[in-house]
Amino acid sequence: MFQCDVRLSRDGGIAVKKSEFARRNFKIIPGSICAPRGFKAAAVFCDIKRLGTGKGSERGRKRDLALIVSEVSAAVAGMFTTNQVCAAPVKISRKVAAKNFAHAIVVNSGNANAATGKRGMVDAKRMAEITARALRLKSNDVLVCSTGRIGVAMPMKNVERGIRSCAPLLARSISNGRKVAEAIMTTDTRRKQIAVQFEIDNRQVRIGGICKGAGMIQPGMATMLAFLTTDVVISPMTLRQGLSEAVAQSFNRITVDGDMSTNDSVIMLANGLAGNARMHRPDLRLKVFQAALNHICAELAKMIVRDGEGVSRFITLHVHGARNASDAEAAARAIANSSLVKASWCGGDPNWGRLLCALGYSKAKVNESAVDIGYSKPGGREILLAFRRGRPTNVALKTLARISDTPEFDLHVDLHLGRAGFTIYASDLTEDYVAFNKGDVNDPTTLGG
Amino acid sequence: MFQCDVRLSRDGGIAVKKSEFARRNFKIIPGSICAPRGFKAAAVFCDIKRLGTGKGSERGRKRDLALIVSEVSAAVAGMFTTNQVCAAPVKISRKVAAKNFAHAIVVNSGNANAATGKRGMVDAKRMAEITARALRLKSNDVLVCSTGRIGVAMPMKNVERGIRSCAPLLARSISNGRKVAEAIMTTDTRRKQIAVQFEIDNRQVRIGGICKGAGMIQPGMATMLAFLTTDVVISPMTLRQGLSEAVAQSFNRITVDGDMSTNDSVIMLANGLAGNARMHRPDLRLKVFQAALNHICAELAKMIVRDGEGVSRFITLHVHGARNASDAEAAARAIANSSLVKASWCGGDPNWGRLLCALGYSKAKVNESAVDIGYSKPGGREILLAFRRGRPTNVALKTLARISDTPEFDLHVDLHLGRAGFTIYASDLTEDYVAFNKGDVNDPTTLGG
Repeated sequence: MFQCDVRLSRDGGIAVKKSEFARRNFKIIPGSICAPRGFKAAAVFCDIKRLGTGKGSERGRKRDLALIVSEVSAAVAGMFTTNQVCAAPVKISRKVAAKNFAHAIVVNSGNANAATGKRGMVDAKRMAEITARALRLKSNDVLVCSTGRIGVAMPMKNVERGIRSCAPLLARSISNGRKVAEAIMTTDTRRKQIAVQFEIDNRQVRIGGICKGAGMIQPGMATMLAFLTTDVVISPMTLRQGLSEAVAQSFNRITVDGDMSTNDSVIMLANGLAGNARMHRPDLRLKVFQAALNHICAELAKMIVRDGEGVSRFITLHVHGARNASDAEAAARAIANSSLVKASWCGGDPNWGRLLCALGYSKAKVNESAVDIGYSKPGGREILLAFRRGRPTNVALKTLARISDTPEFDLHVDLHLGRAGFTIYASDLTEDYVAFNKGDVNDPTTLGG
Repeated sequence: MFQCDVRLSRDGGIAVKKSEFARRNFKIIPGSICAPRGFKAAAVFCDIKRLGTGKGSERGRKRDLALIVSEVSAAVAGMFTTNQVCAAPVKISRKVAAKNFAHAIVVNSGNANAATGKRGMVDAKRMAEITARALRLKSNDVLVCSTGRIGVAMPMKNVERGIRSCAPLLARSISNGRKVAEAIMTTDTRRKQIAVQFEIDNRQVRIGGICKGAGMIQPGMATMLAFLTTDVVISPMTLRQGLSEAVAQSFNRITVDGDMSTNDSVIMLANGLAGNARMHRPDLRLKVFQAALNHICAELAKMIVRDGEGVSRFITLHVHGARNASDAEAAARAIANSSLVKASWCGGDPNWGRLLCALGYSKAKVNESAVDIGYSKPGGREILLAFRRGRPTNVALKTLARISDTPEFDLHVDLHLGRAGFTIYASDLTEDYVAFNKGDVNDPTTLGG
């Protein structure tokens, strides 16, 4: 049975009705992106990680180039970084996604091909061309993604060798799905993968997904790549709407350090091999599909936060009672991105004063004398109020610390000014985060990126 | 002679013409807030720091309550936090400043009297009343400032005892100025004080100032208090304009962690005892006064950044060529508040890629292919370009690191989209910052605030 640990939320959080999952025959299955019919994948090591970041050598030969291929042409939907400085591969993939159908994705880690000028564009196009030739496709059927160091030219010889050696290894297997999930990792410490199976029109439908994150994680989107595959029959337009809804409730609601990257991409391919009748909005069957997709994206997004650079705690922050939706979001983001708040989370300190302070300088309308701030266990209904209607309560800090000094807890802020809400998934700011990101000037291979 | 180490800047940075200082007889003098005629000060320990933060006991009996008093009624100008959650003393002082004239300031550290509800207002008013009684003034002639822990009621017995024991100690002395500069410190490691003397109408005029900062430092203003005194003859309106100009170029251009506090206040008293003829705008003599005031505020502001929590490097970031002033500011703040950029500064890493990335997600209009990014020594004219018109240059990271791996350096960003600029003074993000701010759940006295 589909394991649903996502709380029901009335206010724009990740809302998954338990009953809906119970009614349908939802199943978590292995295989991630290779779980849906007709999707093959493979990954190889071609020395980009070592050349790009200097970390490959220390960590051994980690895979750094992967292919994800649909046997038949697939509907494609893509969502990309809103950063004005966007990497060359993002520009290429945006164009491919705009033509609604595609066949394959080529992705590398170790080099972001960002801030690389015209040469970057030539290299990204070339990656699509080499892949297309190896797979006998048109190059505008190939999406390109890169992640890693910024401002360094792609080592194209390695990339070419990599793609050529990768193509013959393509297979629909659990192990290949896992290898691709590994190949896209940069500073991630764990693979992030999931797949789910359910029924539409008495046909088994599957959605699989993998992603990478670690640093530069801020909604709207993060330094993150996510690849989703499904065998459902769906039009590109409907797929795009579905992906957009799922991303809004997942990848756009997480923050590690508030930095938005140049390379963020979420790409979904739907090849229609499940053979269900085509779905259009509004369609009850689409709701089932959407629920599954929302769940997959939410789980992947939370994996990113939990595996953020140096992260030691996972906080779910609920803002309630805002005047309107944008106020709710502004309040949540101000708190979740405050260095002082995040540092206090690291120490397990129930420092609601800093939280209130961040609330005050957010763009959201705040009336101090109306604010409530409370702590609870993850998903807990019992909320311990630290601050109520503008006054500290007499709950002792030690009592609050019993919640805040745990690896995962929930924070609740009620502005009591309206009915809008927003939920964000956040991490703490640790010494390890700084140590990880400060580079080492005595070892120039670690610099940059 | 007045030591002017502030660079000439055409683009909205702290602009002080060296020639102007050379022409006038500007002198740095001792005494800080007690340097101008008719200003007395004193500071005592009354156990607020220990009660409020638990840090007093470790550090010994640090002074935590101070009075600054003008012998005669003084013109007053105040600038206060724009945080919607603002502390009770800020509300009181805002009212006093609005009536144009005041006599005294009472200030405590160890407790911010913020998020303390109605009781906080009663306590802040009572602080003004006790001070007024001890000094035989009206209570609406007394400004009140507090800094320290948030969400804890003021220990009013201690405060009352402190004010009463402080009043008889009031004196115009270098040592008392220093003691007050110490008494307002919270996590600061150094006193921050300065005074300057110059001539107007052949009369010696003095401006003195002290401030505190450390954490929660973000322009618009920081967790900072600054007190400025002068004996110049000036109208409250002109004083307000002058202070506003000086703050815009100093305290509003610094950032440590991007957090804006509930208690920020810059207060200036001008008692007119220098006996110059009154100045109105436009007035050449006002320019002299303004230059001195700008310099004092700029120096105090930079002291705050250099002494920020855990700070190991001081970076002056110049953004040039923005479309307009608000774009220039948005670009500068996005870079200076990026956790990833700041962590790379900590390691001395010339990671211009992260800087470019922050630029891209800022609200400023950016055209990647037009952007230049360069490094120089502090105030240096020789700029090493790392990125030029959208492309990495062939300057080696090692060469750049020779600049970025020093305690102070300048960063130059040119957007090449217009003529607007902005300069911001920033610090790095260090493991010490996190260690300092994470609190210790095993020692509840360190929690909160």
